Amino acid sequence: MNSADSRIDFATRSSIEQVEEGNELAPKFDEHGLIACVTTSAASGEVLMLGYMNAEALRRTIATSEAHYFSRSRQVLWHKGATSGLVQKVVELRIDDDQDAVWLRVEIPGDASCHVGYRSCFYRSVPVGPGEFKRVLKFEESEKTFDPLKVYGDAPNPTQL
Amino acid sequence: MNSADSRIDFATRSSIEQVEEGNELAPKFDEHGLIACVTTSAASGEVLMLGYMNAEALRRTIATSEAHYFSRSRQVLWHKGATSGLVQKVVELRIDDDQDAVWLRVEIPGDASCHVGYRSCFYRSVPVGPGEFKRVLKFEESEKTFDPLKVYGDAPNPTQL
Repeated sequence: MNSADSRIDFATRSSIEQVEEGNELAPKFDEHGLIACVTTSAASGEVLMLGYMNAEALRRTIATSEAHYFSRSRQVLWHKGATSGLVQKVVELRIDDDQDAVWLRVEIPGDASCHVGYRSCFYRSVPVGPGEFKRVLKFEESEKTFDPLKVYGDAPNPTQL
Repeated sequence: MNSADSRIDFATRSSIEQVEEGNELAPKFDEHGLIACVTTSAASGEVLMLGYMNAEALRRTIATSEAHYFSRSRQVLWHKGATSGLVQKVVELRIDDDQDAVWLRVEIPGDASCHVGYRSCFYRSVPVGPGEFKRVLKFEESEKTFDPLKVYGDAPNPTQL
């Protein structure tokens, strides 16, 4: 990355009118310095993952058109795909009404995103409506898109209990 | 709501295998007791909003098939649509690999969701790639779907600076 990446300007948040109805980029980061980001496949529309960005990750994503996140488990800036090759090319970046959430529409080789090997991180559904107190998750993807062992090797699993 | 809503069972998180590859619902709530939730339109696939649920909101959503959130600005359980009439009927509820995020696909009257009056909360895009340090937001919805003054009256705006 070059130094220009860090110079994307964020406006100071001054009024609800400015934040909601204006054309200034004035993102709100939480007490950990993070903003939530939902990432969907530009091809299928499917939700692939929900991640978080710090200011630097958001700036780099805007400047480079490649998705950068902040890994909460590893506490580092995370250029998605740097390990797996599954780089996310940003087709569109949107920001929500109060500017505390980002939506990326991305293109990925093979449309695969999840570290477990599935296309989407959201590969299981929970039955809703009348039913048992104990709900059984249903797998919505019948097979993995890639073998995480081959792609990630012995890198530590990011999931925390 | 009846008392059964509160009795949806959550499993204790015991292993990565259980959480990622199992069929038990074992959601992870953050230090504020919340789990992130992305909500898309079942009709258009568009991302409508990114909200948060506490355990009770998730249980009620599962039990009733209507989206419930936890309002961080008001610090209350929030049955979406109770004020506006724009109730979200849950067509599908998914949970992600490490079970710390939820994806709802919903049907809404008029497909409108955002408190500012737009269809989606994500009604503005940020240009990505080479460009000025100061990015100008672009409105992606040309007009509001409803008049928030008529729908919400003088209810306080939830946006916080």
